[in-house]
Amino acid sequence: MAHRIGIVGASGYGGAELLRLVAGHPAIEAAVVAAHSAAGEPVASLYPNLAGTRLFDEVDLDALGALDAVVLATPHAAALDLAPALVAGGTPVVDLSAAFRLTAERFATWYGEQHPAPELTPAVYGLPEFHRSEVVGATLVANPGCYPTATLLALRPLAGMLEPGTLVVDAMSGTSGAGRGARDALHFAHVHGAVTAYGAPTHRHTGEVEQHLASTGNDPGPVQFTPHLVPIARGLLATASARLRPGTDPATLLDALHEAYQDEPFVTVLPSGTWPTTKAVHGSNGCQLTAVHDPRTDRIVLSSAIDNLGKGAAGQALQNLNLMLGLPESTGLTSIGTYP
Amino acid sequence: MAHRIGIVGASGYGGAELLRLVAGHPAIEAAVVAAHSAAGEPVASLYPNLAGTRLFDEVDLDALGALDAVVLATPHAAALDLAPALVAGGTPVVDLSAAFRLTAERFATWYGEQHPAPELTPAVYGLPEFHRSEVVGATLVANPGCYPTATLLALRPLAGMLEPGTLVVDAMSGTSGAGRGARDALHFAHVHGAVTAYGAPTHRHTGEVEQHLASTGNDPGPVQFTPHLVPIARGLLATASARLRPGTDPATLLDALHEAYQDEPFVTVLPSGTWPTTKAVHGSNGCQLTAVHDPRTDRIVLSSAIDNLGKGAAGQALQNLNLMLGLPESTGLTSIGTYP
Amino acid sequence: MAHRIGIVGASGYGGAELLRLVAGHPAIEAAVVAAHSAAGEPVASLYPNLAGTRLFDEVDLDALGALDAVVLATPHAAALDLAPALVAGGTPVVDLSAAFRLTAERFATWYGEQHPAPELTPAVYGLPEFHRSEVVGATLVANPGCYPTATLLALRPLAGMLEPGTLVVDAMSGTSGAGRGARDALHFAHVHGAVTAYGAPTHRHTGEVEQHLASTGNDPGPVQFTPHLVPIARGLLATASARLRPGTDPATLLDALHEAYQDEPFVTVLPSGTWPTTKAVHGSNGCQLTAVHDPRTDRIVLSSAIDNLGKGAAGQALQNLNLMLGLPESTGLTSIGTYP
Amino acid sequence: MAHRIGIVGASGYGGAELLRLVAGHPAIEAAVVAAHSAAGEPVASLYPNLAGTRLFDEVDLDALGALDAVVLATPHAAALDLAPALVAGGTPVVDLSAAFRLTAERFATWYGEQHPAPELTPAVYGLPEFHRSEVVGATLVANPGCYPTATLLALRPLAGMLEPGTLVVDAMSGTSGAGRGARDALHFAHVHGAVTAYGAPTHRHTGEVEQHLASTGNDPGPVQFTPHLVPIARGLLATASARLRPGTDPATLLDALHEAYQDEPFVTVLPSGTWPTTKAVHGSNGCQLTAVHDPRTDRIVLSSAIDNLGKGAAGQALQNLNLMLGLPESTGLTSIGTYP
Repeated sequence: MAHRIGIVGASGYGGAELLRLVAGHPAIEAAVVAAHSAAGEPVASLYPNLAGTRLFDEVDLDALGALDAVVLATPHAAALDLAPALVAGGTPVVDLSAAFRLTAERFATWYGEQHPAPELTPAVYGLPEFHRSEVVGATLVANPGCYPTATLLALRPLAGMLEPGTLVVDAMSGTSGAGRGARDALHFAHVHGAVTAYGAPTHRHTGEVEQHLASTGNDPGPVQFTPHLVPIARGLLATASARLRPGTDPATLLDALHEAYQDEPFVTVLPSGTWPTTKAVHGSNGCQLTAVHDPRTDRIVLSSAIDNLGKGAAGQALQNLNLMLGLPESTGLTSIGTYP
Repeated sequence: MAHRIGIVGASGYGGAELLRLVAGHPAIEAAVVAAHSAAGEPVASLYPNLAGTRLFDEVDLDALGALDAVVLATPHAAALDLAPALVAGGTPVVDLSAAFRLTAERFATWYGEQHPAPELTPAVYGLPEFHRSEVVGATLVANPGCYPTATLLALRPLAGMLEPGTLVVDAMSGTSGAGRGARDALHFAHVHGAVTAYGAPTHRHTGEVEQHLASTGNDPGPVQFTPHLVPIARGLLATASARLRPGTDPATLLDALHEAYQDEPFVTVLPSGTWPTTKAVHGSNGCQLTAVHDPRTDRIVLSSAIDNLGKGAAGQALQNLNLMLGLPESTGLTSIGTYP
Repeated sequence: MAHRIGIVGASGYGGAELLRLVAGHPAIEAAVVAAHSAAGEPVASLYPNLAGTRLFDEVDLDALGALDAVVLATPHAAALDLAPALVAGGTPVVDLSAAFRLTAERFATWYGEQHPAPELTPAVYGLPEFHRSEVVGATLVANPGCYPTATLLALRPLAGMLEPGTLVVDAMSGTSGAGRGARDALHFAHVHGAVTAYGAPTHRHTGEVEQHLASTGNDPGPVQFTPHLVPIARGLLATASARLRPGTDPATLLDALHEAYQDEPFVTVLPSGTWPTTKAVHGSNGCQLTAVHDPRTDRIVLSSAIDNLGKGAAGQALQNLNLMLGLPESTGLTSIGTYP
Repeated sequence: MAHRIGIVGASGYGGAELLRLVAGHPAIEAAVVAAHSAAGEPVASLYPNLAGTRLFDEVDLDALGALDAVVLATPHAAALDLAPALVAGGTPVVDLSAAFRLTAERFATWYGEQHPAPELTPAVYGLPEFHRSEVVGATLVANPGCYPTATLLALRPLAGMLEPGTLVVDAMSGTSGAGRGARDALHFAHVHGAVTAYGAPTHRHTGEVEQHLASTGNDPGPVQFTPHLVPIARGLLATASARLRPGTDPATLLDALHEAYQDEPFVTVLPSGTWPTTKAVHGSNGCQLTAVHDPRTDRIVLSSAIDNLGKGAAGQALQNLNLMLGLPESTGLTSIGTYP
């Protein structure tokens, strides 16, 4: 019998992508698809791929509490409300927002507000490649941000080899990463043909990357992070570079990546010189990454591609959910994107 | 045990899309992935989504003949060679090319050459929504072209209601429909921001549409067909209009579509006024269509969206293959596109 | 000394494009750039190409009345208010909206409201290729819609050769044609990869095309018009087809087009078989068109490409303005698009 | 009377863009438009915006030598042949290739070949904002590369404030930067929806940036440069960051940029926090840039946008040509892009 889950914030891109994935999942059923302002509207009116007569549900804490698990795909303010109540009632939660990813202290720094439930922070960080065993038994999993997912998958295995204070990450995201809300800046006519940086140097994902690099025990220090908006609907590429610690053998870098991911179904390490493309993982839960050493600068350059709605959001949420519900981790997921 | 199939022309977009679909199919295995000029090259070098070490195979008729089925995703000239030999040896074949879709006479008209195997023409036409029972027992299935698939799914249920000689079809295809070969006209810099008609009024799919409308017994006559290239990678929209036969009740049109497709897993009829978008079926085997009557002109306007590589090529081939191999028709397929 | 003009609705795409064109015009100065809701905001905050410190002005009828001419780039409701007042005061007006393009009767039919100033309808129709001499002396010019411009430039010279009641126009527009307002349907993530019809069969431009074909004295009757939204920022392609009147010699069709446009600086007739692309006229005031006869159907297929903001709006407005102000018609305009 | 110039390599994107610009230039005429393999073909067959009957000319050194100036838009191998001969004959040359941008020593390092005419290296570097007076009297001007143009305009005024060895540049280019040649990797279907790095860490523009930063007398050392291909036809964004030298007052950074460009017609310094977009300079000779200081890292982040075919190639070539021919520097050029 299928596990019955709820998706809250199902009218957003992350929630709707999860709904799409669950539709093809043999052992999970989306029993509740709740949305605050879209409640009562047909799902198909916002997501024509999800044709049919289903309506978005109201957000009803009692109904959610009766399910096998709940995925929160809401803004972090709503998650700060909902997650503690659900967890207190024993319902496992995967939260796609930033509400529980950081320590309460970092949360205050980057989000400018005191955390209302510091005892739940930081929640288990739902990057299964590094926190699998914690996810399995967790009741609250903080699903990583899209930029941190791509960046951490590239950098974590190498954290100990990087000279602190030299890390620069320039990343490019498709527009679905900016959310579904209609805004001037996201009008097709403005984005088509346009590439632009934004939000640097205070984008909130900076703190998330820093925390989860520091937690390796080999803190490479502050990250210079600049995100860019690029004219694609889905896809995220992170290009990172850092100077190597003195004495690091550059020949070991790619080996370290291979070793970290050799048994991982969703992370593919490409040979040095074969650059990842976002298109290869479009619609999938895959991450493709590679590294090259530059002897002129003694820096390493890494590039990492994900689908921001897949491994960067809903795909990863489902991967976590599979683990939490005792299902095979890859159920209903693929690492193969639709290409071309 | 999985059915072992071969894909010939696996380096083209249609073949590679089938390879992607088969990778997620529980009961079919791509035992041979053959490509003429790319034989020996890594699949991943052309299709980075299909990461790994697999190489394209040589085209070897003996090896192919030993399989449970073969899908030809080659140009029609190669299919004219390979299909008769495979069929003669008893190997079931799905042919994505135009080699066996037409009567030998129409083939000569539209392709400018005598058909070398007229006894095999026309093969069973692999549009399962209308030829399901024939496909089940077939050894040679001619997979429909992309434009004909979208057009026929919209028009076939209404063929008897259309005034002959008034049918106009304007259709728009993504660039993957033009094939993988590098050409000036397909350079990103030329296609980006560009919409253009091409090939009218002699595009070869015109004859295919006409034959398979005429075969309904209600021949609406010659079709004015104009294809357009639009700046998307995948997706095809066909907009058709025709005057109604005198006495036709326009109120019955949408009913006729609903009736035709009520039990079909891959065809969705949208309410009049909800226009299909190619994006809703991206990466899927779905078709979304609708119709509206214009009382000012007494014409009906239909619009039909597919993924040209999905329902328009590889998805439909897999649907046919499932039927031929005795598997549930929808195995490994979805009607839900990746959106947004 | 430069002519001083005002642009009202300068915060919209049409108005801002005119502002761009006037910036490069040697004899016209945009003395007032008025916008209703954006008044007081920097122009550059909406149009980063127009960098600088200029602010949008208030809409002030007195200030506008003191200028040499005013271009209205507002919705038609505002134009219905402003134009009569300006014209009454003797200020020449070019109106980009639909307020004065139609007869009062057609306006009531297509816009669902009684025209408040029927004595001004229809204004001189600002398609200089056919109404040049009227534009020269006009005080109120109704700038044609984008779809009608592309369609009429293709069809007008041939109106007498078309069998009435057989005309079908399928057209594709870039998203700037839908206006600057942020809407779900125009979010980049929704439009990227998407092609979709909309608004048929009651799009208001239908009536405009019909009126200005009928006015040739060779009324080809009602038009089956279906517009499509395509994923480009600018550009519009109209593909039209119609059966020929009995006795029409198809060999004369292209000649008729050549003859109509041989002395026109902005309309280029391409040889049959060379299909226009929107990209060739991007950013310009050009129109490229061609025609081909289909002997199987005895229909003619025409395809016509413009920039919807150029010849389809602001470029044509400037062309009209040049004529009204006694300047050489092509001043500040080009027919050469930015390609690729 | 117009100055008569020749464009060699006019069938490439840079050459054709220059042809477009010269068509609107009041004092320069493209007397020769030569192309090696496309000689004899209609210009319009490759560039539909340049409609008409003109054919590409043969490359004829005598004919070129009789002109007022020649622009080489060829690969660097051809420029190494042609430029010395033309210069020896007294014909002023602007070379868009890399043939003469570097010292012979750097050329050997980055291009892997001995320079055949070291006495002509480095030619006057055609970045007028920094080398205006040298360009005026030059007979050989090396037009900067697209990446170096965007990067140097951002960094040059600040070179003395940057801690050596800390400079990282991640840049994104539209596909026209990769040239017109049809290649698998540039097929629309592959590039649409795709963002990918390439060529790092040995892209040849790295050496060009380093040389022209070092030549300021404040050498910031080696640059970590990673270019990316993004799905736009035109446009280039460079994002650069570097640690500040101890003692540098971050408050002076934006002032330094403003001071450097206050009288420059083509470079616009945006306020900190307003990020440049490629779309604002589409089709123009403009550059928009800005800078922000990150107190957490004590690094500065700069972002700079150009049209790679405009200020990054043909526009800048025309700017240089104007200077060399004694014309006002901005003739036939604009800093205002077509937006949206």
